[in-house]
Amino acid sequence: MPHTTGVRKRKVAVLGATGPVGQRFISLLAGHPWFELAALTTSERNVGKRYADAVHWLGGPDVPEAAADMRLESTRADLDVEICFSALPPDAATEWESSLAKTGHHVFSNDKTHRMDDDVPLIIAEVNPEHANALEFQRRNRGWKGSIVTNGNCTAITLALAVAPLHRAFGIERLMVTTMQSLSGAGYPGVPSLDALDNVVPYIGGEEEKVETETQKFLGTWDGARFAPATFEISASCNRVMVRDGHTESVSVSLRGRPSVAAVIDAMSAFRGRPQELRLPTAPERPVVVRAERDRPQPARDRDTGAGMSVVVGRIREDPVLGVKFTALGHNTIRGAAGASVLNAELLAAEGCLGA
Amino acid sequence: MPHTTGVRKRKVAVLGATGPVGQRFISLLAGHPWFELAALTTSERNVGKRYADAVHWLGGPDVPEAAADMRLESTRADLDVEICFSALPPDAATEWESSLAKTGHHVFSNDKTHRMDDDVPLIIAEVNPEHANALEFQRRNRGWKGSIVTNGNCTAITLALAVAPLHRAFGIERLMVTTMQSLSGAGYPGVPSLDALDNVVPYIGGEEEKVETETQKFLGTWDGARFAPATFEISASCNRVMVRDGHTESVSVSLRGRPSVAAVIDAMSAFRGRPQELRLPTAPERPVVVRAERDRPQPARDRDTGAGMSVVVGRIREDPVLGVKFTALGHNTIRGAAGASVLNAELLAAEGCLGA
Amino acid sequence: MPHTTGVRKRKVAVLGATGPVGQRFISLLAGHPWFELAALTTSERNVGKRYADAVHWLGGPDVPEAAADMRLESTRADLDVEICFSALPPDAATEWESSLAKTGHHVFSNDKTHRMDDDVPLIIAEVNPEHANALEFQRRNRGWKGSIVTNGNCTAITLALAVAPLHRAFGIERLMVTTMQSLSGAGYPGVPSLDALDNVVPYIGGEEEKVETETQKFLGTWDGARFAPATFEISASCNRVMVRDGHTESVSVSLRGRPSVAAVIDAMSAFRGRPQELRLPTAPERPVVVRAERDRPQPARDRDTGAGMSVVVGRIREDPVLGVKFTALGHNTIRGAAGASVLNAELLAAEGCLGA
Amino acid sequence: MPHTTGVRKRKVAVLGATGPVGQRFISLLAGHPWFELAALTTSERNVGKRYADAVHWLGGPDVPEAAADMRLESTRADLDVEICFSALPPDAATEWESSLAKTGHHVFSNDKTHRMDDDVPLIIAEVNPEHANALEFQRRNRGWKGSIVTNGNCTAITLALAVAPLHRAFGIERLMVTTMQSLSGAGYPGVPSLDALDNVVPYIGGEEEKVETETQKFLGTWDGARFAPATFEISASCNRVMVRDGHTESVSVSLRGRPSVAAVIDAMSAFRGRPQELRLPTAPERPVVVRAERDRPQPARDRDTGAGMSVVVGRIREDPVLGVKFTALGHNTIRGAAGASVLNAELLAAEGCLGA
Repeated sequence: MPHTTGVRKRKVAVLGATGPVGQRFISLLAGHPWFELAALTTSERNVGKRYADAVHWLGGPDVPEAAADMRLESTRADLDVEICFSALPPDAATEWESSLAKTGHHVFSNDKTHRMDDDVPLIIAEVNPEHANALEFQRRNRGWKGSIVTNGNCTAITLALAVAPLHRAFGIERLMVTTMQSLSGAGYPGVPSLDALDNVVPYIGGEEEKVETETQKFLGTWDGARFAPATFEISASCNRVMVRDGHTESVSVSLRGRPSVAAVIDAMSAFRGRPQELRLPTAPERPVVVRAERDRPQPARDRDTGAGMSVVVGRIREDPVLGVKFTALGHNTIRGAAGASVLNAELLAAEGCLGA
Repeated sequence: MPHTTGVRKRKVAVLGATGPVGQRFISLLAGHPWFELAALTTSERNVGKRYADAVHWLGGPDVPEAAADMRLESTRADLDVEICFSALPPDAATEWESSLAKTGHHVFSNDKTHRMDDDVPLIIAEVNPEHANALEFQRRNRGWKGSIVTNGNCTAITLALAVAPLHRAFGIERLMVTTMQSLSGAGYPGVPSLDALDNVVPYIGGEEEKVETETQKFLGTWDGARFAPATFEISASCNRVMVRDGHTESVSVSLRGRPSVAAVIDAMSAFRGRPQELRLPTAPERPVVVRAERDRPQPARDRDTGAGMSVVVGRIREDPVLGVKFTALGHNTIRGAAGASVLNAELLAAEGCLGA
Repeated sequence: MPHTTGVRKRKVAVLGATGPVGQRFISLLAGHPWFELAALTTSERNVGKRYADAVHWLGGPDVPEAAADMRLESTRADLDVEICFSALPPDAATEWESSLAKTGHHVFSNDKTHRMDDDVPLIIAEVNPEHANALEFQRRNRGWKGSIVTNGNCTAITLALAVAPLHRAFGIERLMVTTMQSLSGAGYPGVPSLDALDNVVPYIGGEEEKVETETQKFLGTWDGARFAPATFEISASCNRVMVRDGHTESVSVSLRGRPSVAAVIDAMSAFRGRPQELRLPTAPERPVVVRAERDRPQPARDRDTGAGMSVVVGRIREDPVLGVKFTALGHNTIRGAAGASVLNAELLAAEGCLGA
Repeated sequence: MPHTTGVRKRKVAVLGATGPVGQRFISLLAGHPWFELAALTTSERNVGKRYADAVHWLGGPDVPEAAADMRLESTRADLDVEICFSALPPDAATEWESSLAKTGHHVFSNDKTHRMDDDVPLIIAEVNPEHANALEFQRRNRGWKGSIVTNGNCTAITLALAVAPLHRAFGIERLMVTTMQSLSGAGYPGVPSLDALDNVVPYIGGEEEKVETETQKFLGTWDGARFAPATFEISASCNRVMVRDGHTESVSVSLRGRPSVAAVIDAMSAFRGRPQELRLPTAPERPVVVRAERDRPQPARDRDTGAGMSVVVGRIREDPVLGVKFTALGHNTIRGAAGASVLNAELLAAEGCLGA
């Protein structure tokens, strides 16, 4: 029963602790049964400040007590922690994540830098936990004592988790997705309000490529030396809308054997993964929640399902072109970012991949 | 030169004059060079009131002077006008539009009731003006002195106008569209603010069916006795977002001969129609405006292009699944509703289809 | 220790259970340690339906389990409950609240109908709990077995709670307030999104009068036969803004003796009431939370302070005209409505005013 | 008739042309009958670029043709123009505005740097045109060939214009204002959307002081050597709300002689100024428009009144504390900024203060 409190908590750092994803890490790790917040890192200008003084906290009136009085540090290779949860921006991620892995840290990263590396797993704990098998190769290949596990783009995670049951049950041939993404996905200060109000911005830099390639990697296989992506055709169109949290995705999919809508609903509803088996602390009861109402999911109402760790799917119906279509919703800073990392760390800890 | 001011203006009525589409009719017809506002109709409880007193005017500080002091009337078959612009709700449209056509009125309707009738043309003036040839058959068939012309669902108009150049130049095989539609499309009071704020509603009743069937009718042909729809496959997914005006549509399309992106851009940019040839008063210079910026069109910035009568297209790029994808934007209450009707009336007047 | 679980829970009804305030009652009462949801009432067209099927639930993905399967009933005088929490609209409140009180029910009402009655207390549990002394007079006067206690307009509650410490410590001479009120205060469907988006509506019907008169009653006294309102001058200007929950109030006040800003901060920070002494289940630790940041309180960040039961005050500073000014924020459907009623019921239960 | 097109147009520059206020200057000056856009200046990184390429244009689909192809320049003292419209940020304004005035330019500035200087007039063309008499003193005093005229903070302009008729007719004793200000007032990128959505921010740095001091200067007098501010008491509380353009202000005022509400309405409605007498090109027909509806003015509906140059006032009613209260609305980037500057330049040109 790996979810019970063990003898000791592992010390963890949050790298890049002041941005929206860093803040979600703080919220998820304050009071975590297995992990103990031991270091918060930040860019130079904030080093030395109390966390509560430096952060523009977005998650409610007050910073959690466990973090409020911690002093912000620089990111450095000799952080005295076992696990690093990285919300670093790309430049800092490139500079620090491999250094930290080299010196024995287990890095769980939200950054894109290493996601598509041949020996770095991109993991959704319920979808492709077996990709963690690449870590042994990674350590040997790179001469690292630690490791890097990435968790993918927020939009790709929501999509891959929603379609994983279908790929497993039937096999995906073609997939098209149009997204309506939230403002928090752009960080803080992020999208200027004059661009967001009464508007849709039909472009998010680099997003469509990430969704297309990462979804294929999530649903692909590890062959012992590299990742082989799933080979279905995929097209993504990404839009920004005036929503605080939660990415809504309009998905159409062509499946092998042309299963009925009922069969698709069954496959999604029945889906469970290793985190549910292991009863990991951050695992939602159901990773994919199917709703029957004709006008759901909606971000304002459904994004906190499963404490933000469930992807909510609705409007599953026939698609005259590809076969089946539906709407999926995922909380982008929880299931799509910090929560995904924490769940990955729990999974690897429970599976014994992080040492004793 | 049909656009010059002729000997006389035709008297027109706006049916259902107080809703958002009725209001757009008022704005477009106040000061129109060919048409003269002669009657405004409404539901019973407002009959007899000054228009400015009865309407919750949404289009700026004040009702246009041409309409402010007009008295609201009941809709009735003997209205003393030649042309009726109908923004009636379905029940009233069913009750009155054919009665008015029977008694010699030319009805230009925004309602869905007659759109898919076998002998009622569904016209976008630039796309399928030749469908007006059905009117002679319609009169004979129904024993009407007048006629009904419909102009389609706002989302379908935007879509059909954007893809018409491609269907004409190449032929559409398959088409997929996901929409992000504005609040004004739901009328007034329409969407409650508690449902709109910080939210996306992934459902609009009946909308997807309309978009799928009407687009095929717009791009189909009149065979002398009935309309034959275009036969490409089409799938629509419709969403409501927090935008005042302007429907944004993410479109993917498979075209015969797999034309290049450049060829698609050329076909769209070069597109002109009969309204442009005839220089109709409400015709935009370019019915489809192609923008090169990577983050356009956006409703807040582009919806008033061509005084709201142009559809704006951007992000034309390759689609890994269907071939080509892009974003289209149309002003739903102007190009997608009242403006489309007025342009249709101008077209038929200029072509001599409405009598001398 | 009245907050411990006693021998039995009191059975309670929510009257008008489907609107936003009714929904908050459900959320607060599901799992309440002293009260047990025993009846939910509604208007005729929903009678007999499952609560979860009839309600447009706004508080998250799902209706609380305790209420989801309950059947909606008509409001009627012989409801088998001790306490009725009323979120009835004015007409129904006028019809039913006194009937229910007559037949022995203790009615805690959010409606305005009886608020200004001479023998009906208008109570904020921390501000004027002694107004409950009027209940004995009320019963005798009206020949009721039960009672009615009202809790005031949401804007007035927030204001009165914020200034109560100042009235107590110094005495208010003059008070001016301009409000920026949330959409949920208008109910559902409430404010049309076309009126709310990119807008401020500087008018809320009847609100300014309520704020002015109710604040004076809250801060007034019970003389044994009637309520004598506080006699300071008060002026309210009420606006609707695009916020889901939380009324923000810009307050200026003239106090006897011209206390310093520091003295005002001290008085507010130190304020506690009877609910805090009694540790009532719904009582926040601090009824008034003073924040030092220069840009707080903000509804998006602070409205859930104290589980929505604290009023948050910030920007306490000198006012060149009246002496002191500040910004106050209260959660309008919790502290300003359902939560206020529940706290009043807890108070009266704990004080022994509701029978054994 | 100074508003007719004269022999020649004066060449003008817009300083700081890419921000929201700079953009409004471009819109107002493209096609202006008296002024010709001859130079656009910007910060270093954009120098040399086409204006249309460098600007994030917010005012519609396209930059006006008159400016689109102009090359951006550095601000410098020898600009070959007569008039400089300054939308410079404070640092650049401090550096350049007096240099430009020294070398003979007439600078009309939106910046705060010189607003409260003893010899720099702060002018609303309808309110205090006689303050331009200070310019002769200014030139002598500073040894300048040109001049600086400032036009005040956007919130202060709206307030001062709304109350000027009351100060003139009755005399103001005390004034209190709470504002709900738009996002465009914070520039671009300005307010992050995560702070704006579903929120009110009750703080705008420096704003309250500006409103208080500038309003007194506007309504004060020039004594030949310095400006004597009006001496009424004034208190401002400033808030940011989710509105694109238009500042809404809730105003209470104590007037000498306690005039009736009807007298206040009359004074405001009858108010006209020198720009109306002179029929200046940018002058609205009525500087203050009084509306009788109980729920107006609203920014979404009324901000474009008088092409954005009218202040709209509504809800004029008794205030139990100060005497009279009302709501005022002004378009912050037109009447509150660029339009105010342009109108001031027109006024001074028409009055012969800018040379032949």
